Amino acid sequence: MATPAALPLRLYELAFANGRVASPFAWRIRYALAYKGLPFESVPVGFTEIPALFAGRFKTVPILEQGPTALNESWDIALYLDRTFPGTPLLFSNPKELAMVRLFDGWFSGDVLRRWFRLYVLDIYRAVRPEDRAYFRESREARIKGRSLEDFTADREAQLPAVREALAPLRAQLSRYAFLGGDTPNYADFIALGGFHWVASVSTLPPLEHGDSVLRGWLERGFDLYQGIGRDERMRPLFA
Amino acid sequence: MATPAALPLRLYELAFANGRVASPFAWRIRYALAYKGLPFESVPVGFTEIPALFAGRFKTVPILEQGPTALNESWDIALYLDRTFPGTPLLFSNPKELAMVRLFDGWFSGDVLRRWFRLYVLDIYRAVRPEDRAYFRESREARIKGRSLEDFTADREAQLPAVREALAPLRAQLSRYAFLGGDTPNYADFIALGGFHWVASVSTLPPLEHGDSVLRGWLERGFDLYQGIGRDERMRPLFA
Repeated sequence: MATPAALPLRLYELAFANGRVASPFAWRIRYALAYKGLPFESVPVGFTEIPALFAGRFKTVPILEQGPTALNESWDIALYLDRTFPGTPLLFSNPKELAMVRLFDGWFSGDVLRRWFRLYVLDIYRAVRPEDRAYFRESREARIKGRSLEDFTADREAQLPAVREALAPLRAQLSRYAFLGGDTPNYADFIALGGFHWVASVSTLPPLEHGDSVLRGWLERGFDLYQGIGRDERMRPLFA
Repeated sequence: MATPAALPLRLYELAFANGRVASPFAWRIRYALAYKGLPFESVPVGFTEIPALFAGRFKTVPILEQGPTALNESWDIALYLDRTFPGTPLLFSNPKELAMVRLFDGWFSGDVLRRWFRLYVLDIYRAVRPEDRAYFRESREARIKGRSLEDFTADREAQLPAVREALAPLRAQLSRYAFLGGDTPNYADFIALGGFHWVASVSTLPPLEHGDSVLRGWLERGFDLYQGIGRDERMRPLFA
């Protein structure tokens, strides 16, 4: 019998109309798999296909499937990968690094991703597969208390300076180190790079200033990782 | 000859009129020394005494002195302690934990401490030693572009909800773990607890809501560490 680690990995990932994998959470896992040197089969899905997967067990993707095992929630998947493949480079060297990365995620997902949602939710609507649009509009307008996506994003350019300023902790770190994780990338980089992949998949308003050289250098290094995992001609400009 | 590690430690720390050590940066080091089990002599100083120390070599405290060595900047001091006392518990288990804590500090010092300065600079002015007041007012009013401390803080109550909301990443982490560092505290806890010590030394406006039970539980645990290092009857209420 094959050991669990020997069974192939399949990743169900949100994809947009142009085929690009477009979720910040899927990108974390893509980076994690590449870092660990684990090949996987990608299964691109749209929002409205999720209920048909695994008898409706999951409300969100990414979902990782390996033999009889299927799990979603990107943190659970990351921890599963370290547990199942202890012979590959560990995402978390010890419980302290893990706790610190979770603390970082609390800030990045809670503050930065939320601000980007505010800027880009209409761009996302326009980028999702045609059959997903009605679902996307309805579910997101419910989250923003019934305002239309158009109304919600109408003043987005005025918010841009504050959104750029909110990234100051990344700049402080990247003025000192090549990566958020220090001299080499760690899962904090994968979280943040995943966020930028999401924005770059949809943005019609570059999130960063042209002269933001500290973030530019790190993004170049991050997109180049693992034989250019992040390089894709469909990406839209991140710099004004 | 004594090894460097055997020489006594002296910590020059900012103190207020009531004698309380009142700098968030001094508190980080106090926690670090207690965590490592290292005794030290405290030398309380006022702002205007700093130029007279060490022939004016340092513009800020804390300053750590050990035999012929003197250094300031709390990060340099923390790293010095791990280097000089490798046989005591390490503040940073490896370079990854260190990088992640620095990333946290970028957010906490850059965002949270800055917001608290906005709320409490006039309270600090009133708490510093009488002989430090003129210096404190002049230097801080220069930082805020010549506005008076009174004018700068006049609308502070209106900012309180946003300042409380900015602590959401701490709450997210502390809903999962007992400490920011996980099951046991690490230097991220010492950084954040140090910030609360600073506020508790001066505040006439409690920074937290009465019902903020997640932060309350962590603060109680943090103040109890190392035989109640953080317990002091001069502390002002942190909860409304």
